[in-house]
Amino acid sequence: MEQKPEILDTRLVHRSRLFGIEEVHLRFSNGTECQFERLRTPPIAGVMCVPLLDDNTVVLIREYGAGTEEYHLTLPKGGYEHGEDWREAANRELQEEAGYACGRMTFLKDMTLSPGYMGHHIRAVLAEDLHESRLPGDEPEPLEVLTWELSRLDELMERDDMNEARVIAALYMVRAMKESG
Amino acid sequence: MEQKPEILDTRLVHRSRLFGIEEVHLRFSNGTECQFERLRTPPIAGVMCVPLLDDNTVVLIREYGAGTEEYHLTLPKGGYEHGEDWREAANRELQEEAGYACGRMTFLKDMTLSPGYMGHHIRAVLAEDLHESRLPGDEPEPLEVLTWELSRLDELMERDDMNEARVIAALYMVRAMKESG
Repeated sequence: MEQKPEILDTRLVHRSRLFGIEEVHLRFSNGTECQFERLRTPPIAGVMCVPLLDDNTVVLIREYGAGTEEYHLTLPKGGYEHGEDWREAANRELQEEAGYACGRMTFLKDMTLSPGYMGHHIRAVLAEDLHESRLPGDEPEPLEVLTWELSRLDELMERDDMNEARVIAALYMVRAMKESG
Repeated sequence: MEQKPEILDTRLVHRSRLFGIEEVHLRFSNGTECQFERLRTPPIAGVMCVPLLDDNTVVLIREYGAGTEEYHLTLPKGGYEHGEDWREAANRELQEEAGYACGRMTFLKDMTLSPGYMGHHIRAVLAEDLHESRLPGDEPEPLEVLTWELSRLDELMERDDMNEARVIAALYMVRAMKESG
Protein backbone atom coordinates (compact mmCIF):
# COMPACT_ATOMS: atom_id res chain seq x y z
CA MET A 1 0.00 0.00 0.00
CA GLU A 2 2.99 2.33 0.12
CA GLN A 3 2.63 2.95 -3.60
CA LYS A 4 0.14 5.77 -4.03
CA PRO A 5 -2.69 5.48 -6.53
CA GLU A 6 -1.97 7.00 -9.90
CA ILE A 7 -4.04 10.11 -10.66
CA LEU A 8 -5.32 9.51 -14.17
CA ASP A 9 -7.44 12.65 -14.41
CA THR A 10 -8.68 15.59 -12.32
CA ARG A 11 -11.55 17.72 -13.51
CA LEU A 12 -13.16 20.79 -11.94
CA VAL A 13 -16.91 20.20 -12.26
CA HIS A 14 -18.30 23.14 -10.26
CA ARG A 15 -16.89 26.36 -8.94
CA SER A 16 -18.45 28.97 -6.67
CA ARG A 17 -17.00 31.95 -4.86
CA LEU A 18 -15.54 29.79 -2.05
CA PHE A 19 -15.69 26.18 -3.16
CA GLY A 20 -14.59 24.08 -6.09
CA ILE A 21 -15.78 20.54 -6.70
CA GLU A 22 -13.44 18.18 -8.50
CA GLU A 23 -13.76 14.72 -9.96
CA VAL A 24 -10.62 12.68 -9.65
CA HIS A 25 -9.98 9.42 -11.46
CA LEU A 26 -7.56 7.12 -9.64
CA ARG A 27 -5.88 3.80 -10.34
CA PHE A 28 -4.80 2.00 -7.17
CA SER A 29 -1.65 -0.14 -7.14
CA ASN A 30 -3.82 -3.29 -7.29
CA GLY A 31 -5.26 -2.10 -10.60
CA THR A 32 -8.66 -0.95 -9.27
CA GLU A 33 -9.84 2.25 -10.90
CA CYS A 34 -12.22 4.66 -9.12
CA GLN A 35 -13.82 8.04 -9.60
CA PHE A 36 -13.99 10.20 -6.48
CA GLU A 37 -15.53 13.59 -5.87
CA ARG A 38 -13.64 15.98 -3.64
CA LEU A 39 -13.48 19.65 -2.76
CA ARG A 40 -10.72 21.55 -4.44
CA THR A 41 -7.96 22.45 -2.01
CA PRO A 42 -8.01 26.23 -1.60
CA PRO A 43 -4.88 28.29 -2.28
CA ILE A 44 -4.94 29.71 1.26
CA ALA A 45 -4.05 27.60 4.29
CA GLY A 46 -5.59 27.87 7.75
CA VAL A 47 -4.05 28.59 11.11
CA MET A 48 -5.64 28.15 14.56
CA CYS A 49 -4.30 29.38 17.91
CA VAL A 50 -4.54 27.79 21.32
CA PRO A 51 -3.97 30.97 23.39
CA LEU A 52 -2.79 30.31 26.94
CA LEU A 53 -2.93 32.99 29.64
CA ASP A 54 -0.98 30.58 31.86
CA ASP A 55 -0.17 26.86 31.69
CA ASN A 56 -3.72 25.97 32.79
CA THR A 57 -5.88 28.74 31.27
CA VAL A 58 -6.96 28.75 27.64
CA VAL A 59 -8.78 31.59 25.89
CA LEU A 60 -11.83 30.49 23.91
CA ILE A 61 -14.20 32.43 21.68
CA ARG A 62 -17.87 31.93 21.00
CA GLU A 63 -18.82 32.28 17.36
CA TYR A 64 -21.80 31.57 15.14
CA GLY A 65 -21.31 28.82 12.55
CA ALA A 66 -23.24 29.48 9.36
CA GLY A 67 -22.79 25.82 8.40
CA THR A 68 -24.32 24.38 11.55
CA GLU A 69 -26.61 27.33 12.39
CA GLU A 70 -25.42 27.17 15.99
CA TYR A 71 -23.08 29.12 18.27
CA HIS A 72 -19.89 27.20 19.12
CA LEU A 73 -17.04 27.53 21.56
CA THR A 74 -13.97 27.58 19.37
CA LEU A 75 -10.44 28.94 19.00
CA PRO A 76 -9.24 31.95 17.01
CA LYS A 77 -8.43 30.95 13.45
CA GLY A 78 -8.27 32.22 9.93
CA GLY A 79 -6.68 31.85 6.54
CA TYR A 80 -3.30 33.00 5.37
CA GLU A 81 -2.11 33.71 1.88
CA HIS A 82 0.59 31.75 0.14
CA GLY A 83 3.89 33.35 1.13
CA GLU A 84 2.50 34.98 4.28
CA ASP A 85 4.20 33.96 7.53
CA TRP A 86 1.84 31.73 9.54
CA ARG A 87 3.05 33.27 12.81
CA GLU A 88 1.97 36.73 11.62
CA ALA A 89 -1.36 35.36 10.41
CA ALA A 90 -1.96 33.57 13.71
CA ASN A 91 -1.10 36.66 15.72
CA ARG A 92 -3.42 38.78 13.55
CA GLU A 93 -6.37 36.39 13.98
CA LEU A 94 -5.69 36.22 17.72
CA GLN A 95 -5.91 40.01 17.96
CA GLU A 96 -8.98 40.25 15.72
CA GLU A 97 -10.99 37.47 17.32
CA ALA A 98 -9.83 37.31 20.95
CA GLY A 99 -8.23 40.70 21.64
CA TYR A 100 -4.78 39.34 22.50
CA ALA A 101 -1.38 39.42 20.84
CA CYS A 102 1.20 36.80 21.71
CA GLY A 103 4.92 36.95 22.26
CA ARG A 104 5.66 33.25 21.78
CA MET A 105 4.23 30.81 19.27
CA THR A 106 4.88 27.06 19.11
CA PHE A 107 3.91 24.75 16.26
CA LEU A 108 1.55 21.96 17.40
CA LYS A 109 0.25 20.03 14.39
CA ASP A 110 -0.88 20.34 10.79
CA MET A 111 -4.32 18.78 10.77
CA THR A 112 -6.68 17.63 8.03
CA LEU A 113 -10.48 17.69 8.28
CA SER A 114 -11.74 14.92 6.01
CA PRO A 115 -8.86 13.59 3.90
CA GLY A 116 -11.09 11.45 1.70
CA TYR A 117 -13.04 14.46 0.48
CA MET A 118 -10.88 17.54 0.87
CA GLY A 119 -7.23 18.50 1.00
CA HIS A 120 -7.79 21.35 3.46
CA HIS A 121 -5.16 21.69 6.18
CA ILE A 122 -5.10 23.81 9.30
CA ARG A 123 -1.99 24.52 11.35
CA ALA A 124 -2.65 24.38 15.09
CA VAL A 125 -0.26 26.53 17.13
CA LEU A 126 0.22 27.27 20.80
CA ALA A 127 0.17 31.02 21.57
CA GLU A 128 1.75 32.13 24.84
CA ASP A 129 3.10 35.26 26.50
CA LEU A 130 -0.20 37.06 25.74
CA HIS A 131 -0.98 40.74 26.15
CA GLU A 132 -4.18 42.62 25.37
CA SER A 133 -4.22 44.02 21.85
CA ARG A 134 -7.23 44.29 19.58
CA LEU A 135 -7.31 44.59 15.80
CA PRO A 136 -10.52 45.20 13.85
CA GLY A 137 -11.71 42.00 12.16
CA ASP A 138 -14.33 41.15 9.58
CA GLU A 139 -16.71 39.41 11.98
CA PRO A 140 -20.38 40.39 11.61
CA GLU A 141 -20.70 40.81 15.39
CA PRO A 142 -18.24 41.08 18.31
CA LEU A 143 -17.16 37.64 19.55
CA GLU A 144 -17.59 36.64 23.15
CA VAL A 145 -14.22 35.81 24.74
CA LEU A 146 -13.98 33.46 27.72
CA THR A 147 -11.42 31.37 29.54
CA TRP A 148 -11.36 27.73 30.60
CA GLU A 149 -8.99 25.65 32.75
CA LEU A 150 -7.22 22.84 30.93
CA SER A 151 -7.53 20.76 34.11
CA ARG A 152 -11.30 20.85 33.48
CA LEU A 153 -11.08 19.84 29.81
CA ASP A 154 -13.21 16.71 30.26
CA GLU A 155 -15.99 18.90 31.66
CA LEU A 156 -15.71 21.21 28.63
CA MET A 157 -16.21 18.18 26.36
CA GLU A 158 -19.58 17.53 27.96
CA ARG A 159 -20.88 20.80 26.54
CA ASP A 160 -22.85 20.51 23.30
CA ASP A 161 -21.46 23.83 22.04
CA MET A 162 -17.88 22.45 22.22
CA ASN A 163 -17.86 20.11 19.25
CA GLU A 164 -15.33 21.19 16.63
CA ALA A 165 -12.95 18.26 16.10
CA ARG A 166 -9.84 20.35 15.38
CA VAL A 167 -10.48 22.47 18.47
CA ILE A 168 -10.89 19.41 20.69
CA ALA A 169 -7.75 17.85 19.18
CA ALA A 170 -5.66 20.99 19.73
CA LEU A 171 -6.83 21.46 23.32
CA TYR A 172 -5.93 17.87 24.27
CA MET A 173 -2.57 18.18 22.52
CA VAL A 174 -1.75 21.31 24.50
CA ARG A 175 -2.81 19.70 27.74
CA ALA A 176 -0.63 16.66 26.99
CA MET A 177 2.29 18.95 26.17
CA LYS A 178 1.90 20.90 29.40
CA GLU A 179 1.46 17.76 31.50
CA SER A 180 4.62 16.22 30.09
CA GLY A 181 6.46 19.47 30.86
CA MET B 1 -25.13 36.70 21.34
CA GLU B 2 -27.55 34.07 22.60
CA GLN B 3 -30.06 35.13 19.99
CA LYS B 4 -29.22 33.31 16.77
CA PRO B 5 -29.05 35.19 13.48
CA GLU B 6 -32.19 35.12 11.43
CA ILE B 7 -31.91 33.10 8.23
CA LEU B 8 -33.42 35.38 5.58
CA ASP B 9 -32.75 33.11 2.63
CA THR B 10 -30.98 29.87 1.67
CA ARG B 11 -30.29 29.06 -1.95
CA LEU B 12 -28.66 25.99 -3.51
CA VAL B 13 -26.25 27.37 -6.09
CA HIS B 14 -24.44 24.19 -7.20
CA ARG B 15 -25.06 20.52 -6.84
CA SER B 16 -22.90 17.55 -7.77
CA ARG B 17 -23.18 13.85 -6.99
CA LEU B 18 -21.78 14.28 -3.44
CA PHE B 19 -21.77 17.97 -2.65
CA GLY B 20 -24.18 20.84 -2.63
CA ILE B 21 -23.12 24.48 -2.31
CA GLU B 22 -25.55 26.88 -0.66
CA GLU B 23 -25.69 30.62 -0.24
CA VAL B 24 -27.23 31.68 3.03
CA HIS B 25 -28.32 35.20 3.86
CA LEU B 26 -28.23 36.00 7.59
CA ARG B 27 -29.23 38.91 9.79
CA PHE B 28 -27.37 38.95 13.10
CA SER B 29 -29.07 40.19 16.24
CA ASN B 30 -27.10 43.46 15.97
CA GLY B 31 -28.70 44.09 12.58
CA THR B 32 -25.67 43.17 10.44
CA GLU B 33 -26.64 41.25 7.31
CA CYS B 34 -24.22 38.84 5.62
CA GLN B 35 -24.13 36.38 2.77
CA PHE B 36 -22.20 33.17 3.50
CA GLU B 37 -21.39 30.22 1.30
CA ARG B 38 -21.54 26.81 2.87
CA LEU B 39 -21.73 23.15 1.92
CA ARG B 40 -25.16 21.64 2.12
CA THR B 41 -25.47 19.28 5.07
CA PRO B 42 -25.87 15.77 3.66
CA PRO B 43 -28.88 13.66 4.63
CA ILE B 44 -26.62 10.90 5.98
CA ALA B 45 -24.66 11.30 9.22
CA GLY B 46 -21.22 9.89 9.95
CA VAL B 47 -20.03 7.53 12.64
CA MET B 48 -16.43 6.77 13.63
CA CYS B 49 -15.20 3.99 15.95
CA VAL B 50 -12.32 3.98 18.38
CA PRO B 51 -11.85 0.19 18.59
CA LEU B 52 -10.01 -0.96 21.72
CA LEU B 53 -8.52 -4.45 21.99
CA ASP B 54 -7.81 -3.65 25.65
CA ASP B 55 -7.76 -0.43 27.69
CA ASN B 56 -4.41 0.57 26.18
CA THR B 57 -4.53 -0.83 22.62
CA VAL B 58 -6.37 0.91 19.81
CA VAL B 59 -6.92 -0.51 16.33
CA LEU B 60 -6.04 1.89 13.51
CA ILE B 61 -6.39 1.58 9.76
CA ARG B 62 -4.28 3.03 6.99
CA GLU B 63 -6.29 4.44 4.12
CA TYR B 64 -5.70 6.59 1.05
CA GLY B 65 -7.33 10.01 1.10
CA ALA B 66 -8.41 11.17 -2.34
CA GLY B 67 -8.70 14.73 -1.00
CA THR B 68 -5.14 14.97 0.32
CA GLU B 69 -3.57 12.45 -2.09
CA GLU B 70 -1.79 10.81 0.85
CA TYR B 71 -2.14 7.67 2.95
CA HIS B 72 -3.33 8.39 6.51
CA LEU B 73 -3.61 6.52 9.76
CA THR B 74 -7.24 6.80 10.69
CA LEU B 75 -10.18 5.09 12.40
CA PRO B 76 -12.99 3.03 10.85
CA LYS B 77 -15.85 5.28 9.85
CA GLY B 78 -18.70 5.63 7.43
CA GLY B 79 -22.11 7.08 6.83
CA TYR B 80 -25.46 5.92 8.06
CA GLU B 81 -28.87 6.58 6.67
CA HIS B 82 -31.56 8.53 8.41
CA GLY B 83 -33.39 6.06 10.63
CA GLU B 84 -30.55 3.51 10.72
CA ASP B 85 -29.21 2.71 14.18
CA TRP B 86 -25.75 4.29 14.60
CA ARG B 87 -24.57 1.29 16.63
CA GLU B 88 -25.33 -1.04 13.75
CA ALA B 89 -23.68 1.33 11.28
CA ALA B 90 -20.58 1.61 13.46
CA ASN B 91 -20.34 -2.14 13.89
CA ARG B 92 -20.70 -2.63 10.13
CA GLU B 93 -17.93 -0.14 9.31
CA LEU B 94 -15.72 -1.72 11.95
CA GLN B 95 -16.13 -5.12 10.33
CA GLU B 96 -15.68 -3.79 6.79
CA GLU B 97 -12.65 -1.64 7.44
CA ALA B 98 -10.83 -3.27 10.36
CA GLY B 99 -12.09 -6.86 10.46
CA TYR B 100 -13.55 -6.68 13.96
CA ALA B 101 -17.05 -6.70 15.40
CA CYS B 102 -17.68 -5.24 18.83
CA GLY B 103 -19.85 -6.33 21.72
CA ARG B 104 -19.99 -2.99 23.55
CA MET B 105 -20.32 0.52 22.16
CA THR B 106 -20.15 3.78 24.12
CA PHE B 107 -21.05 7.22 22.81
CA LEU B 108 -18.11 9.64 22.95
CA LYS B 109 -18.97 12.87 21.15
CA ASP B 110 -20.81 14.35 18.19
CA MET B 111 -18.19 16.40 16.40
CA THR B 112 -18.31 19.04 13.69
CA LEU B 113 -15.57 19.61 11.11
CA SER B 114 -15.78 23.26 10.13
CA PRO B 115 -18.98 24.78 11.52
CA GLY B 116 -18.60 28.04 9.62
CA TYR B 117 -18.74 26.27 6.27
CA MET B 118 -20.52 22.95 6.71
CA GLY B 119 -23.08 21.34 8.97
CA HIS B 120 -21.50 17.90 8.75
CA HIS B 121 -21.43 15.95 12.01
CA ILE B 122 -19.66 12.73 12.90
CA ARG B 123 -20.46 10.64 15.95
CA ALA B 124 -17.35 9.28 17.65
CA VAL B 125 -17.95 6.07 19.60
CA LEU B 126 -15.83 3.76 21.68
CA ALA B 127 -15.97 0.12 20.48
CA GLU B 128 -14.93 -2.55 22.98
CA ASP B 129 -15.27 -6.29 23.53
CA LEU B 130 -13.92 -6.92 20.00
CA HIS B 131 -13.81 -10.20 18.11
CA GLU B 132 -12.57 -10.93 14.61
CA SER B 133 -15.30 -10.65 12.01
CA ARG B 134 -14.91 -9.34 8.48
CA LEU B 135 -17.59 -8.00 6.16
CA PRO B 136 -16.89 -7.09 2.54
CA GLY B 137 -16.67 -3.32 2.10
CA ASP B 138 -16.56 -0.98 -0.85
CA GLU B 139 -12.91 0.01 -0.44
CA PRO B 140 -10.89 0.00 -3.66
CA GLU B 141 -8.05 -1.89 -1.93
CA PRO B 142 -7.70 -3.85 1.32
CA LEU B 143 -6.91 -1.54 4.24
CA GLU B 144 -3.86 -2.10 6.40
CA VAL B 145 -4.86 -2.70 10.03
CA LEU B 146 -2.46 -1.92 12.86
CA THR B 147 -2.51 -1.35 16.61
CA TRP B 148 -1.09 1.42 18.79
CA GLU B 149 -0.77 1.88 22.56
CA LEU B 150 -2.73 4.80 23.99
CA SER B 151 0.13 5.35 26.44
CA ARG B 152 2.23 6.25 23.37
CA LEU B 153 -0.31 8.67 21.88
CA ASP B 154 2.03 11.65 21.96
CA GLU B 155 4.50 9.66 19.86
CA LEU B 156 1.72 8.85 17.38
CA MET B 157 1.03 12.59 17.02
CA GLU B 158 4.59 13.14 15.81
CA ARG B 159 3.85 11.09 12.70
CA ASP B 160 2.94 13.10 9.62
CA ASP B 161 0.45 10.43 8.49
CA MET B 162 -1.58 10.91 11.71
CA ASN B 163 -3.24 14.23 11.03
CA GLU B 164 -7.04 13.90 10.89
CA ALA B 165 -8.47 16.25 13.51
CA ARG B 166 -11.50 14.12 14.44
CA VAL B 167 -9.27 11.04 14.82
CA ILE B 168 -6.83 12.91 17.06
CA ALA B 169 -9.73 14.30 19.11
CA ALA B 170 -11.37 10.89 19.57
CA LEU B 171 -8.11 9.18 20.56
CA TYR B 172 -7.37 11.77 23.26
CA MET B 173 -10.96 11.60 24.53
CA VAL B 174 -10.71 7.83 24.90
CA ARG B 175 -7.37 8.07 26.66
CA ALA B 176 -8.79 10.67 29.06
CA MET B 177 -11.80 8.43 29.71
CA LYS B 178 -9.63 5.40 30.41
CA GLU B 179 -7.23 7.38 32.64
CA SER B 180 -10.07 8.73 34.73
CA GLY B 181 -11.40 5.18 35.11
